[in-house]
Amino acid sequence: MGNPVYRTSLALLTDLYQLTMAYGYHRTGAAEQEAVFHLTFRKSPFGGEYALACGLATAIDWLEDFHFAADDLEYLATLTGSDDKPLFDDHFLAMLGVLELACDIDAVPEGTVVFPHEPLIRVQGPLVHCQLLETALLNILNFQTLIATKAARVCHEAQGDPVLEFGLRRAQGIDGGLSASRAAFAGGCAATSNLLAGKLYDIPVKGTHAHSWVMTFDSELEAFAAYAGALPNNCVFLVDTYNTVDGVRHAIEIGLLLRKQGAEMVGVRLDSGDLAELSIQARKLLDEGGFPEARIVASNDLNEQLIRDLKQQGAQINVWGVGTQLATAYDQPALGGVYKLAAIREPGEDWRYKVKLSEQAIKISNPGVQQVRRYLKDGKFLGDSIYDEPTGIAEPPSILLGEPLPRTVTFDAADDSTDLLVPIFRQGKRVYHPPRLTEVRERARQQLAGLSPAVTRLFNPAPYPVGLERSLYELKASLVAAAREGQV
Amino acid sequence: MGNPVYRTSLALLTDLYQLTMAYGYHRTGAAEQEAVFHLTFRKSPFGGEYALACGLATAIDWLEDFHFAADDLEYLATLTGSDDKPLFDDHFLAMLGVLELACDIDAVPEGTVVFPHEPLIRVQGPLVHCQLLETALLNILNFQTLIATKAARVCHEAQGDPVLEFGLRRAQGIDGGLSASRAAFAGGCAATSNLLAGKLYDIPVKGTHAHSWVMTFDSELEAFAAYAGALPNNCVFLVDTYNTVDGVRHAIEIGLLLRKQGAEMVGVRLDSGDLAELSIQARKLLDEGGFPEARIVASNDLNEQLIRDLKQQGAQINVWGVGTQLATAYDQPALGGVYKLAAIREPGEDWRYKVKLSEQAIKISNPGVQQVRRYLKDGKFLGDSIYDEPTGIAEPPSILLGEPLPRTVTFDAADDSTDLLVPIFRQGKRVYHPPRLTEVRERARQQLAGLSPAVTRLFNPAPYPVGLERSLYELKASLVAAAREGQV
Repeated sequence: MGNPVYRTSLALLTDLYQLTMAYGYHRTGAAEQEAVFHLTFRKSPFGGEYALACGLATAIDWLEDFHFAADDLEYLATLTGSDDKPLFDDHFLAMLGVLELACDIDAVPEGTVVFPHEPLIRVQGPLVHCQLLETALLNILNFQTLIATKAARVCHEAQGDPVLEFGLRRAQGIDGGLSASRAAFAGGCAATSNLLAGKLYDIPVKGTHAHSWVMTFDSELEAFAAYAGALPNNCVFLVDTYNTVDGVRHAIEIGLLLRKQGAEMVGVRLDSGDLAELSIQARKLLDEGGFPEARIVASNDLNEQLIRDLKQQGAQINVWGVGTQLATAYDQPALGGVYKLAAIREPGEDWRYKVKLSEQAIKISNPGVQQVRRYLKDGKFLGDSIYDEPTGIAEPPSILLGEPLPRTVTFDAADDSTDLLVPIFRQGKRVYHPPRLTEVRERARQQLAGLSPAVTRLFNPAPYPVGLERSLYELKASLVAAAREGQV
Repeated sequence: MGNPVYRTSLALLTDLYQLTMAYGYHRTGAAEQEAVFHLTFRKSPFGGEYALACGLATAIDWLEDFHFAADDLEYLATLTGSDDKPLFDDHFLAMLGVLELACDIDAVPEGTVVFPHEPLIRVQGPLVHCQLLETALLNILNFQTLIATKAARVCHEAQGDPVLEFGLRRAQGIDGGLSASRAAFAGGCAATSNLLAGKLYDIPVKGTHAHSWVMTFDSELEAFAAYAGALPNNCVFLVDTYNTVDGVRHAIEIGLLLRKQGAEMVGVRLDSGDLAELSIQARKLLDEGGFPEARIVASNDLNEQLIRDLKQQGAQINVWGVGTQLATAYDQPALGGVYKLAAIREPGEDWRYKVKLSEQAIKISNPGVQQVRRYLKDGKFLGDSIYDEPTGIAEPPSILLGEPLPRTVTFDAADDSTDLLVPIFRQGKRVYHPPRLTEVRERARQQLAGLSPAVTRLFNPAPYPVGLERSLYELKASLVAAAREGQV
């Protein structure tokens, strides 16, 4: 059980301050308190309106394996403070050594469309436990949600053409590449070039040959012939090593030989030059040469905007290979997810709800034990209500949007509704079976279909209504006012 | 031995096309050929002039552990082509199962300043082996070199102030965070917040408390007092949860109590607002309050430009916490490193040197079995010559720069020179002992000191002379001309 990839215990995959705070709570007796934290983001990435939740299964692997190993404790024992004396005492380290997570964790299933301020994960449990999970949950969910969203945007512009993820060589580290391949597939990609991701996550893999293959032979024609001889059932010829149009002609020549032997060329790949013009020429040559079914694969620093532009220019491209721009989310390589305290209580007492103040309204956190209810009509999403689960939702269901003079949006028209957060752990035990990645991908497809095209467009999308349920809105307003007055 | 982090074999951390090409070479008998590949980048990142080589030790871990495990072969056996029949035959898979790397690998030590077109790694060996290493070497070196370079730029602007790397929560995956912490330290950072990186790579770790610590108490003063009680030797108070100036006053109040008990407050941290103005106010309060030695730590989406601007505005900041912008190289999240074939030969025959053509001169690869010689005078770097090791360097040493009318730069003034690439593997056996990361960091510091300030400045730096040695230049020109004529 636990994580399939890493050899080392990953409990230390966290910031030191989580441990110093844990120690502080332990020393002050505050560790007995129960807390609620939510992981949210404040702004959807890439100038779009939505994000696609991803990374939960990876987070579950990490959570199930959570333990401090003996060498973790030995390492922590070596850390010293400003007086060169140990930071942590033996009693605390012994406590860590036997710590078993006792949290209740609820989360939005992977492949769900989510919006700013909606909790992707809610963690409720002993204050110290909640704190020790923060950094790893952020690391895992921030990145995979970012990449799944990027993939959804790229696939949206590809308009149903398969998109292949090719980013491993420029990905941010080994796991940067693995996680990116996983999330890109969840977000809609058809396959990856990354074999390890294929093996670990059961993602289809694609690939044929590079320029170096062509260069090791005396001519391109000889190189294609050799490749076709060795792998007759995997022939996508890379045609731009010397001259692209000549390359297409050579592919056709070898394709005809292949056909005589009972095999069929899959297509050609273009990796440089004006992909619109070259693909139109290639299509014409392939059609005239007897290969109307041959696919034209294109790559070369593609992203969603370039794909849209190429489509508008009439490019005859059937398959899109997207690498660096997808695997690193090049134009916005981080999602600014945060993990904020929303409620705390002494054992057996009532919740004290909490807000974090800021001069920027967008940075003021929401209080409560939050859940998100999504309202639907005819399968389309009308809007989402963030509500306090203990309080529930007042009838008729409505949300308040905007500050300082909020407007009310009601969901009278809804014929259905669903709560987004589902139980994942109870008292530290997993109660959820993560679906297979292909199911996540299918969920993402269905979720995206629930949104209006105005909401999914690349730039300046229409706003999707997400707000606080009336009673939570009022609670927050009173907490903010009290905090601003009483802040000391 | 092998890789300390990953549980799984990582030979499949590669693109499928490396395996299909390997299979093709195997099937056509071309696998017996010996090849030379170089890993280079074409443009220094972030608009700067240089990069700082990093990642070699991680690559060595990967190379030493390189093997196809039984489950890797089982997975490869499941892959099928366009006719749904297997891609690979049993003979090939059996060959992979017993494959032991037999390459000679030379590389630039970590912490070396490098420039476009200079090989960071040279791989010479059986064609199939060279090909199987490409993707992982690119993944590891591209990212760590990128982050080490970013860190060097950030530390350059911090002008000797310590820079702390805080990026784990927004890093690109688990290893994205680990690799980033490693490379950031190599590039000059003083410490990381990432405990696992601290444990695995022996990097100093730093951290105290978050806003959530303050929020769990009834007041900020109470929160600081509790923290000081628990961790008197690690007191950097985060002062901006409510009001920053009040926060500094509370820190001073607790600092005085702490002092009575024989401990000393380390400082305060600012994480929002106008860091220039707030740090000036905080410095004044701390000085007047009897804490002239207390440090002011600042964080909040910092990067090298913001640090420079804050310094210019007279900010009284002593320690810089840099997170997302550093750990993801936010403004350029990928280094476009490539791995190109430069020479090939049949067993026992002469090298056939190779170039990859392109319409863009910058994308035409260099041929040969390359080495880089750096010329120095009084410890300062004069320039670098990329030369063909079998041919050597003609006297007097000179390089040709630019196209189509190159100018000659000679190194007559040099009083010293050194070859950058050193032997790492011979016949697949490691012959190099990677230095400790602190030594890498020290090497980086010394290397950066070898460059003129005009070369290390952030933007529009002066060009550093790097070119091909005359005979290699002429060889390349003749190969390009021949390839352009004979290209078929």
